[in-house]
Order: sequence, then structure tokens, then C-alpha cells
Amino acid sequence: MQTIEKTETKLLELKTRLSEITDIEAAASLLYWDQATYMPPKGAAARGRQLATLQQISHSKFTDPAMGELLEDLRSLEASLPYDSDEASLVRVTRRKYERAARVPATFMAKFSRHRTDTYGAWVAARPDNNFAAVEPYLEKTLELSRELANFFPGYDHIADPLIDFADYGMQAGFLRSLFAQLRDELVPIVEAITAQPMTDDRCLHQYYPAQDQLAFTLKIIEQLGYDFQRGRQDQTHHPFMINFSTEDVRITTRVYDNDLGQALFSSIHEMGHGLYEQGISPTLEGTPLAGGTSAGIHESQSRLWENIVGRSRGFWQFFYPQLQAAFPHQLKDISLETFYRAINKVVRSLIRTDADEVTYNLHVMIRFDLELDLLEGKLAVRDLPEAWRERYRSDLGIVPETDMDGVLQDVHWYTSQIGGMFQCYTLGNLMSSQIFEAALVAHPEILANIEQGQFSTLHNWLRENIYQHGCKYTAAELIKGVTGADLHIAPFIRYIRQKYGQLYDL
Amino acid sequence: MQTIEKTETKLLELKTRLSEITDIEAAASLLYWDQATYMPPKGAAARGRQLATLQQISHSKFTDPAMGELLEDLRSLEASLPYDSDEASLVRVTRRKYERAARVPATFMAKFSRHRTDTYGAWVAARPDNNFAAVEPYLEKTLELSRELANFFPGYDHIADPLIDFADYGMQAGFLRSLFAQLRDELVPIVEAITAQPMTDDRCLHQYYPAQDQLAFTLKIIEQLGYDFQRGRQDQTHHPFMINFSTEDVRITTRVYDNDLGQALFSSIHEMGHGLYEQGISPTLEGTPLAGGTSAGIHESQSRLWENIVGRSRGFWQFFYPQLQAAFPHQLKDISLETFYRAINKVVRSLIRTDADEVTYNLHVMIRFDLELDLLEGKLAVRDLPEAWRERYRSDLGIVPETDMDGVLQDVHWYTSQIGGMFQCYTLGNLMSSQIFEAALVAHPEILANIEQGQFSTLHNWLRENIYQHGCKYTAAELIKGVTGADLHIAPFIRYIRQKYGQLYDL
Repeated sequence: MQTIEKTETKLLELKTRLSEITDIEAAASLLYWDQATYMPPKGAAARGRQLATLQQISHSKFTDPAMGELLEDLRSLEASLPYDSDEASLVRVTRRKYERAARVPATFMAKFSRHRTDTYGAWVAARPDNNFAAVEPYLEKTLELSRELANFFPGYDHIADPLIDFADYGMQAGFLRSLFAQLRDELVPIVEAITAQPMTDDRCLHQYYPAQDQLAFTLKIIEQLGYDFQRGRQDQTHHPFMINFSTEDVRITTRVYDNDLGQALFSSIHEMGHGLYEQGISPTLEGTPLAGGTSAGIHESQSRLWENIVGRSRGFWQFFYPQLQAAFPHQLKDISLETFYRAINKVVRSLIRTDADEVTYNLHVMIRFDLELDLLEGKLAVRDLPEAWRERYRSDLGIVPETDMDGVLQDVHWYTSQIGGMFQCYTLGNLMSSQIFEAALVAHPEILANIEQGQFSTLHNWLRENIYQHGCKYTAAELIKGVTGADLHIAPFIRYIRQKYGQLYDL
Repeated sequence: MQTIEKTETKLLELKTRLSEITDIEAAASLLYWDQATYMPPKGAAARGRQLATLQQISHSKFTDPAMGELLEDLRSLEASLPYDSDEASLVRVTRRKYERAARVPATFMAKFSRHRTDTYGAWVAARPDNNFAAVEPYLEKTLELSRELANFFPGYDHIADPLIDFADYGMQAGFLRSLFAQLRDELVPIVEAITAQPMTDDRCLHQYYPAQDQLAFTLKIIEQLGYDFQRGRQDQTHHPFMINFSTEDVRITTRVYDNDLGQALFSSIHEMGHGLYEQGISPTLEGTPLAGGTSAGIHESQSRLWENIVGRSRGFWQFFYPQLQAAFPHQLKDISLETFYRAINKVVRSLIRTDADEVTYNLHVMIRFDLELDLLEGKLAVRDLPEAWRERYRSDLGIVPETDMDGVLQDVHWYTSQIGGMFQCYTLGNLMSSQIFEAALVAHPEILANIEQGQFSTLHNWLRENIYQHGCKYTAAELIKGVTGADLHIAPFIRYIRQKYGQLYDL
């Protein structure tokens, strides 16, 4: 009896500590959201300090040795409860996160944080000048610190594994390399076959579309898709993102170009996919580390599922295109659904990852993933990175960037974080999205017909039931296996691409 | 030598601790700003928890006994430096705030905080129903807790003094009672003389004015007045306020009624006055308790100076009225400057403090101030408060509220904070604004002519130089004496009212 009471007391203390940390993290997230949306320009310096202070406080509270003791003391409780119960999951997942966080000394965190800030500043200056030489010494140091970071987690198979764990816990470089190699072998010939055909005409998307009207249309779409505006909102930012301050306040941002209709439409649906995930987490997990998406890959699977598999499907636009034409009669009255549908699914060999279509996108990602591994392994020197980048674009995509701005200086990731573990989530997300969607169709074959009628609740409910509500109770691998009955594999994505683009390009 | 080094180390440690606390408070302020501006409705519950957590952390860090020890150790440094040096001021003011904060036990804070939340909820429900009985038991408890709070600061002359100190440090009930009595004796006959005359026609303000056009005009005005939009922004909220996250990020809010032009115009200028104060604080005080307005009264003096003395002056509108007419030609083309000027300065016996004109406003405030003292002294029982309210409105303003909603349930203050110290700042602000403005005119007699030409920098610079830059280095009393050469007195305000309204109403 006394033991049970003691355990209850300890569980309550754990929850109290975690709730406080969650609140601090939410405040830090709001500082970030505000910085990206409404902060006046000169607020930036103080904002940087405020963010650093809150992150430091939350990290120090989370890695308090008392937290480790509590988690040890709660092992027997965890063992006595079902694996997927809220309490056992709380202790298990918190311990995993605690052990990871506690491994990295605060002094290293501070040193790495300062270096990342410096590197980002150097990149912002170097990028417009195509000046890779200016960032090279920073990247050298980043590579060194990335290895140091990985080595706080000895016993790995590949030095990238601990770094991959930060975003996609449990995924390993060896497995991913093999998975991605299969994917590349399938994709390269498809891209070749498609790009041998005449290029799709997408001029209909590049007329003048007033920004306010575009925004109004995106709001209408994402509300119908199931995003809850009582628990969220959409604002504009330079780079779209999703962020949440609780499961009851999950916000998204979008960007609008008045000469590119696709930007606002698909970035809104993409971020909404992330948002549906967070809005769908069980309220019983609120205030704990369980109340969040379980991995970057699973998160991306939801944004890509809604953006691409649903939002770029013919059925979706059978329903929405008449409304889009009504919203933009001048621009679209003479454009057929078929022309529009082909335009939003145009496949092209391109240099910029974030603008890439569904077919070529993963080739961009996998180039970066392989280069990360080569750098970490020491096979590739930082000074040779620009040439290695060009070489891989030549072999995988058949085009070569003329400048480093469109090449190795393109993505912010390596210039604001570690090298290693930064890119796999995008391709994981695409693969998972297809595998999950196939499972949804097995459970509810009517989903495709529903989409044509503008009804999304069957799909949304199935995803909430099977994925969203669990937060991070399950790892990505557990979730994929549990939801689809199989381990992650490339076949569903390849089937999806072959079917959709086979028909579009008459392969 | 070693001592100097030790002192430097301690000073640095003090600044480091204060900087961390300032960051946490800024994050809490942003949580509040977001709640009032953009937060989705269902975010409220989590937001309440987040605010409470950050306030608790910041309070606990500020009242850490180590802080007290540091402040003790820095007494010799303080004594060795000029009174108004940054360092001596930092130690002196921080110690004063520390000693006040450390006096109130955390358990009492938590208890009072919960009670205030409950009381506010009861008030929100009771107000539309005119149901004073429903809040009476809450107010009884508030009164009891307010006395308990005051008694953590023994040695006072009047039990309200420690409560007044929270907002207006150094002001005392006895002094204020006497000051306010003089003011009342002057104002009541003026109000009688004015209201014996025909009522001013202010229908020109109550036409339809599109909200967006009003907002655009307020932005133009406050920018010209000197508000820096690189370090601030204006949003809409139900109740306008100013809030800051650093001296480089000072935001204001306004409210717009499409049938009342005065609301947006004057609430924007009012909050901008608060904003100019905070934007004008010396950057060397950033990250310390010195970087804020020194008292609620001084703060209010700046909002009222800009709103009333400048913003409702004839000279101001000689400059801006043609622009206002150009912005709203349909509504104002046939309205003369004189008619508009009289409309925005209409004096009327009214029931609602926040809508009251300059002449009657202080009568509203002083009624509440006196009732607070009577309650604290035990002269007045909570159950007799509604009747006491009516009685005072009858004697001071010559009208009686028909409902408690327009009477004792009108203001949120007593229902969300303590009883005592909540209202004096408004009248202090009005009195100070006139006394300060007279001093500015002595230094720069050209200010009145400048205003007629839409030039505000001489006044703004003088205020920044003499008041804003100092943050809270000086107490309100020190500042008034230093800036105006005299202690606070009512003569300047009475001169201002007599001159302006004597001319308007031909007294």
C-alpha cells in the first residue's frame, strides 16, 4: 500500500516537472512564432537572448538528475502496466529522451549553439555571393562538432546513427542507405522516361493571382480538409511551418506569391497536414513529452499525404477546381481541369529541392543524405563538397548547378545544425505516406470516392485513430508496422508514382 | 584590488541573474500579448497554465536568497557611485523591488492568484446580470486578502500605503486624499458651470467610419508623433494596452468602433504615449529592472499628455484635421474644424469612467479611490458598496447609475487584483501630465507652435531627455521634482482645464 502511494507520488512529481518544462517550451515556441510573423525588425537581438534563455532553462530542468532518479524509481510502475498505456509510455519515452539529453554536456551544447549561430551568419552573407570558401572553415568545424556530438552516444553501427536518432529515432544509416539505393534505382528510369517527353505547360499557374484572394481560398480548403480554426490559425511567413503551443493551439503558416498559385495552395495543405497530426493528439497526453509527433519522418508523411496524395490528386480537384475557377474566373475560366491537374503535377529536372515535384524530390534528398554520410565517414572532405554535389546532380538528375547558391549553399540545414540526420526525414515521409495511405484504403476503400465529393472525414478519422492520437507513444517503426502490417518499404510509393505518373505521362 | 574584482564579479552575477529574469518576463508578456491579439479561442486553458508557470519561475528566481545576498554585498559599490549612475541605481532599485517581492510568501501569492482567477470568473458572469450579490462574497474575501497583503509590510501610516506602493511607489494615502480633495473642490464647480450650458453636438464623430480607414489614419498620426515602427507595432484588442518585450520591441494595441471615430484615434495616441516612454528608455538599462516606466502614475502622465494635452488640442487638429477630412471626405467635408474640436472635447456628466472627458474623468477616479480606502479602513462594508457608489455619483457627478453594471460592477480592477492602490494612478497621471507639460513649455516655448505645424520632435526629445531615458532610476516624486522644480501639485492641471475649457465653454 505504501509502495503504491509512493509510486503515485513519484508519478505525480514527474508529471508536474514535465508540465512545467512543456510550458517553458511552449513559451519558447511562441517567441519563435512571433519572430517569424509579427515581431518588429529591431526586436531581433533581444528575441535571440530570450529564446536562448528559455531553451537553457528547459534543458537544465529536463536534465536535472532528480528527473533521472524519478524515472529509475518508476521502472516497476512501467513494467506493471501495458506497453501502450499512457503511464508506461510516459515513463518509457521520457526516459529515452532524458537519457539522450543528459548525455550531451551543457558546455558542448553552448559551444555548438554559438558555432551554429556564427555559421548561419556566415551562410547568409556567403550564399548570395556564391562564396563557398567563406563558409568552408565553418563547415569543417561543424563536421568536427557533429562527430563529437555523435560520440556522446558510443556503440553505434554508423556514426550518423545517433544524429539520425535526434529526428528519426531508431532509423539507421545502413538501413536507410539500402532503402534509398533501391528507391534511386526505381526512380531514375522513371524520371528519364518522363523527361524524354514534351514538357508540361504550367503557365496557367503563373498568371497574376491577388495574394488576398489566394489566402482566402487556402483557408476555405484547409477548413474543409478538417483543420480546426478554433484550435489554430494561419499566418504568412517567409518559410512556411507548423508550430504548436498545446494540442489546443496548433498554428500553421504559408507563403503567397502573386505569380505562382501553387505556392500558397500546397504549402498551406502541407503545413495543415502537420497541423492535423498535432491537433489529433489525445488530450490525455497534454503537458507531457508524449504530446508531439513521434518522428520527423512520420510528421512529414502526414504533410505529404495531405499535400500530394490527396491535394494533388485528380479526385481532389474534381471537387475543388470549379470553386477555384469561381474564385479566379479571369485567370481560369478557359483552363480545363485536365490542364490544371497536369500543371500542378509537372515533372521536371530541377536544381532546387523545395520546388521539386513528387517524382524527382527524393533524388534531391538522397543526394544530400549520401553526402552527409560521406562527410561523417571521412570519405569526402568539406573542400570537395561543391564538386561532389555537382557530380551527384549530374548522375542522378542529369543537370548541374551553375552556381553554389543553387548547389551546396542551397539548403539552410547544414548551416544551422549538425551534419548528419538532417535530410532523411523528407524521403522517409514520402515513403511512409504511400504505405500509410494504402493501409487507409484497405480499411476504407470509399476514401477515393469521398475525396471526389469533398469529404475527408473518413480519412482524417482513420489517421487520427491510428496515428495522430498516440502522439509519440510508439516509435516510427512500431507505428508503421502496427498501422500497415509491414515494415517500411518502397513498394507502395513506387506503385503510387507509377500509377499516377504512368497515366499522366502515358508511360 | 581583490575587493574590486570581487565586487565586479558580484555585479556581473547580479546582471546575469536579472537578465535571465527579464527574458522570462518578456516571454510571459508575449504569452499575454498573443492571448489578447491572435490566439485561437481554444488556446486559452493552456495559455493560463503557461503564464502561471513563467510567472512562478521568474518570481522564484527573483526572490532567491542568493539575490538578497548579492544585493547586500553590493552596498559598498552602491555607496561609492553617484546616485543616478546606472550601477548604483541598479543596486538600489533592484534591492527595493527584491525586498518588496521577498516579503510576500509564495503560498500567499498562489492563494491570492487562485482567488483572483475565481473572482474574475464570477464578475464576468455577474456583470451582465447586474448581480452584485453573486460577487459580494468574493469581494469580501478579496478585501480580507488585500489587508493580509498590506500587513506583510508593517509600519505603514495607512493600510493602503503598501498596496499603493505596488503601482505608485512612495505615494501615500494621506497625501493623496488631501491632494484629491483639493482637486475635487476645484473640479465640481467647473463641471457644474459647463453642464449648465447647452450640450455639445458631437454627432460628427458618430457617423459610419470604415474600420480599416480609421486604422490607417491612426498609424499615420502615431508615426508622425514619433512612435518607431521599427521597434513596435499596433494591433487590435478589446481593451487597448501597451506592452514591451525589450526597449527595442514596444507594442501597442487599439480598438476601432465604426460608429465612433474618437475610440481608435485617442486610444491609439494614448497607448502610443505609453509606448514612447518605453521606446525612450536608455539601451544601457536593457535587461535590468531599471528598463521600465518608474510608476503607473508617471506612465499615465505620458499617455495622457499625448492623448489629451497634445492630441485633443486645437493646434494639433489645425494640422491634422485637413488630413482627416481628406481621409473621410464624405463624413467630414461639411464639418468645420471648430465643430470637430468641440466634439472631441465634449464635457458631459456620465457614468462610465473610461468614456469620460478630461474635466469629469478625475471625479470618477477619486470616487473609486475613496471607496477603496473606506473599505480597507473598515468604514464601509462590502455589502454597502453599491449604495455608497450611487451616493458618491450623486454628490460628485450629479447622476446616479440605474444598474450596478454601470456602477460598482463597472471596472474590472477590484475583480482581478487587490482592493487598494488600483485607481490613484489615473488622476496622478492627469495631474503630472500638466505639470510636466508646463515645464516643457518653459524650456521650449515653441512647442505649441510646433504642434500646429505637425512637428513633435522638440517635445518628444525633451521628454526623452528628462523622463524616458531614466527608466526607473528615479522615483516618481524625484522625477517630478527634478523635471518641474516642484513637488506634485494640482495648480498646473487646474490652469490647463480652466484655460482650455474656459475658452471652449466661455466660462
